[in-house]
Amino acid sequence: MCFSLVNKAIVETAASKMARCLLLLTLFLWLSCCSSYKYETYFFKQKVDHFSFADQDSFIQRYLISDSHWDHSGGPIFFYAGNEGDITLFAENTGFMWDIAPEFNALVIFAEHRYYGVSLPYGNKSLTEPKYSGYLTSEQALADYVELLAYLKTVIRGAKNSPVIVFGGSYGGMLAAWFRIKYPHIVQGAIAASAPILQFTGLTPCEKFGQLVTADFAKESKECAEVIRKSWAAIDAVTADDSGLAWLTKEWQLCQPLKGKDDVKTLKAYLMDVWTNLAMVDYPYPSDFLAPLPAYPIKEVCSQLTNPGHGPKLLLEEVFSGLTVYVNFTGKTKCVNIDQQADVRLDDRGWDFQACTEMVMPFCYDGVSDFFEPAEWNFEEYAENCHQKWGVYPRPMMAPKIYGGKELSAASNIVFSNGNLDPWSTGGVMWNVSDSVVSVIIPEGAHHLDLRGSNPNDPESVINARKVEKEFIRTWIEEYRSAHNLVGNDRKNTNTFEVVEPHL
Amino acid sequence: MCFSLVNKAIVETAASKMARCLLLLTLFLWLSCCSSYKYETYFFKQKVDHFSFADQDSFIQRYLISDSHWDHSGGPIFFYAGNEGDITLFAENTGFMWDIAPEFNALVIFAEHRYYGVSLPYGNKSLTEPKYSGYLTSEQALADYVELLAYLKTVIRGAKNSPVIVFGGSYGGMLAAWFRIKYPHIVQGAIAASAPILQFTGLTPCEKFGQLVTADFAKESKECAEVIRKSWAAIDAVTADDSGLAWLTKEWQLCQPLKGKDDVKTLKAYLMDVWTNLAMVDYPYPSDFLAPLPAYPIKEVCSQLTNPGHGPKLLLEEVFSGLTVYVNFTGKTKCVNIDQQADVRLDDRGWDFQACTEMVMPFCYDGVSDFFEPAEWNFEEYAENCHQKWGVYPRPMMAPKIYGGKELSAASNIVFSNGNLDPWSTGGVMWNVSDSVVSVIIPEGAHHLDLRGSNPNDPESVINARKVEKEFIRTWIEEYRSAHNLVGNDRKNTNTFEVVEPHL
Repeated sequence: MCFSLVNKAIVETAASKMARCLLLLTLFLWLSCCSSYKYETYFFKQKVDHFSFADQDSFIQRYLISDSHWDHSGGPIFFYAGNEGDITLFAENTGFMWDIAPEFNALVIFAEHRYYGVSLPYGNKSLTEPKYSGYLTSEQALADYVELLAYLKTVIRGAKNSPVIVFGGSYGGMLAAWFRIKYPHIVQGAIAASAPILQFTGLTPCEKFGQLVTADFAKESKECAEVIRKSWAAIDAVTADDSGLAWLTKEWQLCQPLKGKDDVKTLKAYLMDVWTNLAMVDYPYPSDFLAPLPAYPIKEVCSQLTNPGHGPKLLLEEVFSGLTVYVNFTGKTKCVNIDQQADVRLDDRGWDFQACTEMVMPFCYDGVSDFFEPAEWNFEEYAENCHQKWGVYPRPMMAPKIYGGKELSAASNIVFSNGNLDPWSTGGVMWNVSDSVVSVIIPEGAHHLDLRGSNPNDPESVINARKVEKEFIRTWIEEYRSAHNLVGNDRKNTNTFEVVEPHL
Repeated sequence: MCFSLVNKAIVETAASKMARCLLLLTLFLWLSCCSSYKYETYFFKQKVDHFSFADQDSFIQRYLISDSHWDHSGGPIFFYAGNEGDITLFAENTGFMWDIAPEFNALVIFAEHRYYGVSLPYGNKSLTEPKYSGYLTSEQALADYVELLAYLKTVIRGAKNSPVIVFGGSYGGMLAAWFRIKYPHIVQGAIAASAPILQFTGLTPCEKFGQLVTADFAKESKECAEVIRKSWAAIDAVTADDSGLAWLTKEWQLCQPLKGKDDVKTLKAYLMDVWTNLAMVDYPYPSDFLAPLPAYPIKEVCSQLTNPGHGPKLLLEEVFSGLTVYVNFTGKTKCVNIDQQADVRLDDRGWDFQACTEMVMPFCYDGVSDFFEPAEWNFEEYAENCHQKWGVYPRPMMAPKIYGGKELSAASNIVFSNGNLDPWSTGGVMWNVSDSVVSVIIPEGAHHLDLRGSNPNDPESVINARKVEKEFIRTWIEEYRSAHNLVGNDRKNTNTFEVVEPHL
């Protein structure tokens, strides 16, 4: 998920919306022309509400499909359960599926999550009020995937009896696991990478997440973590007067000048996001998932944060040197925009709505066992804030009640993979539940490293994790074929897609 | 389910509504005072929509609870998944749960299905238009049960770690099976009696149901089935003119005079329902489920239907003698009301809405392999009729897609019991899916006979079926306790209920 620690009300002006849309469009065109993976883009008509008959609206969902390596006579379907962003972003960053599709002769599908990318049930009104936004839930998204797969199995010849393996990372990994848990008749197995299905009320202590972010930095050097721990007070000290606000604005090359306490709060939230995102994407090679970054970016950052003994200004100068690794690795950033930290194709507005409704994930910090400013988890305040922003109150126990929380004994055919560098692993399933619901731990792994394409710099542990995942996939496919007596039958060598024209 | 073959638009006048409500109230009071089973009535506030945030309304659900035999230190919960009717009707007719509660020290709960009995989300507007009626789906009903159980486990001391066994018959049996399939973390096992989870498009041939109804009568005598097969033409012949309409009205003691073809159509539909209901409730002792009836009522009916060689009027006189067994076993019926055949506490309006939305069950008749008038299954006509009545189009594949149809290989801990006399068995699971998803067949059983209280006239087969069911229940409870290390712990000897005041 696009991590955002502060649930700030997002007020978009018409101009900023336009800019955002243009940016999205540019990225989309760029991806269409230059993405390393080849796929076709299709659209499918979905019901807005799958579980009731009150709302009878429909919308158009986007999905990407590649049959380059597809065995038309019943080869498996590799299905990515799209999460909170433009689906092309996930297609681009889930190289594992593309890497292994040839050896499995798999059809590759990436389905866009409703309310993200171009799959907006009510166009630009989609997130304006609960009667439109209210259908943005994981249950409805999974039901979209059920309908899409049922349809594709009908219209793609040879796919009728294809086993389906679902993949997903982060919130997509949660969806992948839940897809298998709730619809085992639709998907034969799930690769749920970095899926924090236990990051809910009562399931995981709220302080664990921040502690792991901190440990990732402290692992490089104690001083590094200490500089960050001291930076909050330093910011307060420096920004206590107007000249300090101006100094920090200039020193940190901020796009908008800091004008007072609210801006300082936004700056701190931005910093929290940056440190957290760095922990998530501490990959062993240069990457471009949340931002363009060098290999092992935390090591780079920490090479700058060396002296916690500095006074406030010197300390903040150091912090900025570290920050530059995240905000300006390309050297092309003209100023630092603290209102936008991650790839714009991850829609933080949609995720903020989900975090305010079903995906209520408690976080807290004490500044001692972690390097953040102390902040308790205050659900009442959180709920009121959500109600103000979105007109709805959260249902913190919705997901655990519906999907089962830790009670996974009746589940089957799921690999939960987690990297020890990834703070989300603290809300993940880190034990073997049974022979077929297993945990794969990648000691050197950050956020769903295993789902990324193979890379010469991959640590041995992620190479092994992928091997284990492939073995499970092979087993699930074989079990399915043996249960359905599918040995080379259903062999028709034509495949056709029927395409629903996009109603955009 | 309250079987209704003809989806007639039900137009209620204010007066008839009042009468209906009064009748409901009278029955309710009578049951409260004289039912053989003792329970307390409570109410719980539910969300109208569990899966989205657009509709944020709530309603009050009724449930019945009995702790007479409850072991306060973690005894199991026996939970009846209420189906299409006043929950007191099911409490009264599910003696099996009451019979075995003492030996299991179980807490007994009967939960009313939304939109039935007094659990009406929008009061008397509940079924008036889709924005109110649209939330009457099995998915929402199951989510009600999830919420209710989560709540009760919190407020009833000693219940926190209680294993839950869900019971249900007919549509309630479908709900019980689906409850375990979708929420195995909430219920440890399901007794799904006479649950036609395969009575959906593409899963069961539409003619099977009528054939089994016919076989139940033909088993008594060929002549009996033949009289019924010939009765349709006899009715047409006799009602061809006004004097014939008057004759039949008088001869059959109808409450309302037959005035023309539409009334004749209603009469035939009524007869179809009667023969079908008789097949469903062909119990080995007098019963009062759909109507007050003698033991083995089909035998009684068939003792009257002996001569298919009679001309139309004589044949219809015979048919009426048979019909009397169903409509006037008590001898107190003053006239035959062909608009209402079953217990009024089974709400055929609610069920008609469900049959027109999610519970689309195809039936067809050929008059040769069955004794009904030939009638094809015409989905388009059915769908248009539904749209006219309810303002919604059916989703015939909704239930199979969501619950899996025949694909039960990932399910566990379900007993599907079926009686060979019961026409609904044709849509039931009649094979062992695995060691823990099993079929129990009761050769002499009608509709969920096993769920009824034990009776001296019970055939051996139902006695054995109940033994098997009890063994499975015991196993599920033991497995749960062993998985949760619950051996005599969690022993606190107080139990308290918190009661939500009914907002009626």
